Amino acid sequence: MNPVIDLLKSHRSIRKFTDRKIDEELFQELIRAGQSAATSSHVQATTVIRVNDPGNRQRIAELAGNQPYVVSCSHFLMFCADMRRIFDACKRSGTEVKEGMTEQFVIATVDTALMAQNVAVAAESAGLGICYIGGVRNNPAEISELLRLPRHVYPVFGFCMGYPDQSPEVKPRLPLPAILKDDYYDDSVDQEQVSSFDETMRQYYRSRSSANKDSTWTEQMTVLFTSKSRPHMRDFLRERGFEMK
Amino acid sequence: MNPVIDLLKSHRSIRKFTDRKIDEELFQELIRAGQSAATSSHVQATTVIRVNDPGNRQRIAELAGNQPYVVSCSHFLMFCADMRRIFDACKRSGTEVKEGMTEQFVIATVDTALMAQNVAVAAESAGLGICYIGGVRNNPAEISELLRLPRHVYPVFGFCMGYPDQSPEVKPRLPLPAILKDDYYDDSVDQEQVSSFDETMRQYYRSRSSANKDSTWTEQMTVLFTSKSRPHMRDFLRERGFEMK
Repeated sequence: MNPVIDLLKSHRSIRKFTDRKIDEELFQELIRAGQSAATSSHVQATTVIRVNDPGNRQRIAELAGNQPYVVSCSHFLMFCADMRRIFDACKRSGTEVKEGMTEQFVIATVDTALMAQNVAVAAESAGLGICYIGGVRNNPAEISELLRLPRHVYPVFGFCMGYPDQSPEVKPRLPLPAILKDDYYDDSVDQEQVSSFDETMRQYYRSRSSANKDSTWTEQMTVLFTSKSRPHMRDFLRERGFEMK
Repeated sequence: MNPVIDLLKSHRSIRKFTDRKIDEELFQELIRAGQSAATSSHVQATTVIRVNDPGNRQRIAELAGNQPYVVSCSHFLMFCADMRRIFDACKRSGTEVKEGMTEQFVIATVDTALMAQNVAVAAESAGLGICYIGGVRNNPAEISELLRLPRHVYPVFGFCMGYPDQSPEVKPRLPLPAILKDDYYDDSVDQEQVSSFDETMRQYYRSRSSANKDSTWTEQMTVLFTSKSRPHMRDFLRERGFEMK
């Protein structure tokens, strides 16, 4: 369609990186490109921690469920939803803001994801590979302590970035009729669409170049949502000042 | 730096559109580019509703706080966080998933934002303009009813898309040292950085081509967070099956 759309459609997570480091000037451009994403009412409720310390990288790799690319990538970033900067600014101007509102959590989480996705696109446009690390939410309290995150800041996901040393297949996505609806949420075609996608995924898992298995999307989701609900998240967020009031 | 990074850095919200409609083939490519964004464990917890019905567009424009471009843009999309498709698939395979976990809310909200940002980048690469409509969270229950959203689905934001009929300035962003930290969250420079940004924004608001005002970022945030916390969000989300357990 056009080179940008082709780039977006060629995304796949990279988990194996060469030793080459990302140049500092390029890195800063990627972050600036991230900042250019839309932000709710100009709030910019995100802080990015670049983790350089090898010991902390190792610890985060373990806490995220043993993901060694957290250590081996050129740059590892923690994308944090940050309401603190706003609360501090308001306080300095003499206003006490009501904290812990659910809407603040939504704003900061969405802002952070929009920014990160721009960084992802920018990085891939420069020949880099990336991988989101949602596994940081396995142990968000320990990670927050490690990075000295203050109240009103929480780690949404980690982010590995570097020069790719692998070229995995692009993973299929659900068929358009399953995820795009006209005017109303109509799920009458969903069962059929998901069945068809299950077959697509079975073929993909059987034939991909590594970690082959015999499975479907439905089977993967079933395993995921019966085991991995991260039940600590509510209390963790409450303790960090995201009380969902 | 490169054309993609230049494109990302040139983003600004577009709120005035020509009458030209987006071609269906291009539109579907934009949604597919959106789907190519990373998704937590392949969950793909997003459904996009394209609102064609003029009456519903008008009603949403009002419910979102009188935003007429919801009506005048070529395509108006509602980006919905969707856990229902997954619960349904698990149910069909004989598993009852524990609903309402906070982590599920985070996964679905982040997935939706990542996808939308890819659609935004794809759209801008094709010469379109876009505007996120967070204002749909002013009245999320009415909007959910209008679009017949089932339980376990919620509207995260609306999204206007079309050919731009304006060319506003790019809005400045916080200085890099305020939002990017090395190894630890260190806010020792933040007050100074925000003060400097307040001056940048004062100049921007004074000199931009429309809606001039005398204000700063801190002043804008103070107004925003003392009035617009959308206190209904918690109960709304609970009623939709996002209980934050």
